[in-house]
Amino acid sequence: MKIMKSAEKGKVYLVGSGPGDPELLTLRAVSLLQTADCIFHDDLVSTEILQMAHAGATVENVGKRRGVKTITQEQINRLLVRSAQAGSSVVRLKAGDPMLFGRAGEEMEALHAEGIPFEVVPGITAGFGAASALQVALTDRRLASKVIFLTGHRASAEAEKHWGRFPEDATLVIYMPGTDYERLAAQLAQSGFGPQTPCIVVSHAATSRQQSLRVTLEELAHAQPLPAPCVVLVGVALAQCFRDSAGMETTDARR
Amino acid sequence: MKIMKSAEKGKVYLVGSGPGDPELLTLRAVSLLQTADCIFHDDLVSTEILQMAHAGATVENVGKRRGVKTITQEQINRLLVRSAQAGSSVVRLKAGDPMLFGRAGEEMEALHAEGIPFEVVPGITAGFGAASALQVALTDRRLASKVIFLTGHRASAEAEKHWGRFPEDATLVIYMPGTDYERLAAQLAQSGFGPQTPCIVVSHAATSRQQSLRVTLEELAHAQPLPAPCVVLVGVALAQCFRDSAGMETTDARR
Repeated sequence: MKIMKSAEKGKVYLVGSGPGDPELLTLRAVSLLQTADCIFHDDLVSTEILQMAHAGATVENVGKRRGVKTITQEQINRLLVRSAQAGSSVVRLKAGDPMLFGRAGEEMEALHAEGIPFEVVPGITAGFGAASALQVALTDRRLASKVIFLTGHRASAEAEKHWGRFPEDATLVIYMPGTDYERLAAQLAQSGFGPQTPCIVVSHAATSRQQSLRVTLEELAHAQPLPAPCVVLVGVALAQCFRDSAGMETTDARR
Repeated sequence: MKIMKSAEKGKVYLVGSGPGDPELLTLRAVSLLQTADCIFHDDLVSTEILQMAHAGATVENVGKRRGVKTITQEQINRLLVRSAQAGSSVVRLKAGDPMLFGRAGEEMEALHAEGIPFEVVPGITAGFGAASALQVALTDRRLASKVIFLTGHRASAEAEKHWGRFPEDATLVIYMPGTDYERLAAQLAQSGFGPQTPCIVVSHAATSRQQSLRVTLEELAHAQPLPAPCVVLVGVALAQCFRDSAGMETTDARR
């Protein structure tokens, strides 16, 4: 295997850290984390992963803390640009994969405008982490041929009230579902999913703190919310799930 | 960081190998590849990755060769079961992520029926690999809030002729698009995408053999097909793409 390249000076790396378990980092991510001068990370990135940075590295949380945004996207963009211009090798460490719900587009635009070289390193997104940890396939050639990643909220909340109809053979992976499961269940019903559709809520997917809840869509409305961050999986393919929340074997469609 | 666990005897690991670049393997995948007794892999898994197996390991291609299926899914299932029953540690190595278009559901079902313990290790799927390599975000809070993974063909080809309408703010990631781009472009138009929608065809995404083609939907119909495996990305968010097929910087929506 070729020798891994260290992080280069004056360059920014947008790196996916995966769901949180250090074993789910890519080799490339590890090599960059171990050699970068500066690491600017999301709040959701785990301590175990940040400990990979070398002793002299600057490590700064640029995410929300306890749900409160303390630094704007514009400020993060400037921080990346200035650190690279000062000659540092910079890792912008994002939870999951940088290209999915990660504002990577805005950061790349800012770096490009200032002529800063950058590289993007993909990561395991929470939806795939959850599927593997719960042993549930997102597609099945007999049942489900589409997977839709979407968020429970976005900048324009009004526009998101109705999702429109989704194909019947789709599995949904909902990021940032919030805690109003009654509203979420109503949205899903409006989008064409029947009351018996299997739903799995997964908190801290693919980490040691993982909890999950397997319910039907009609049961979801009255379920107790799990702690953030969560993803919610929805669709007929999920009936066949081999692990329950305690990591025990199961074959029931619901617990 | 905790010590990595080796592959256990009598157990099957469904492991995602990512798009092909060994640096995009997870640490967990590397540790399993280096310690497993048997590795049964898809045809698309790269030689560089297979070379990580230890010298005494059995390494067998159970995928299609030159597009021809030489072993059935049923035979693969039996191979996994029997190898584990014989006391081997078994890695079932799949291109990309095992839970997306990977028939993992059928393999887990067979293992579960025979009481064989198994574990699933997620991998970087080609769509995310392509997005990072081309420096194009799949979502943008200003433009696109959904990503839809689907296949260009499936068991029941008739059922797939019409995809139905997709939300306007969706980015599509089409696996196994085939080479009939005229038909593909017509399907996309029927699904509601306008003639100027940016499309990117990516062959051998995130590997040294990567090639890509950036066109509008109306140009896609007459484009020269790229070699398989390909993914096709479609959607308004793709207008802002910072790398062209040669890895050179670009800001044009099209080349």
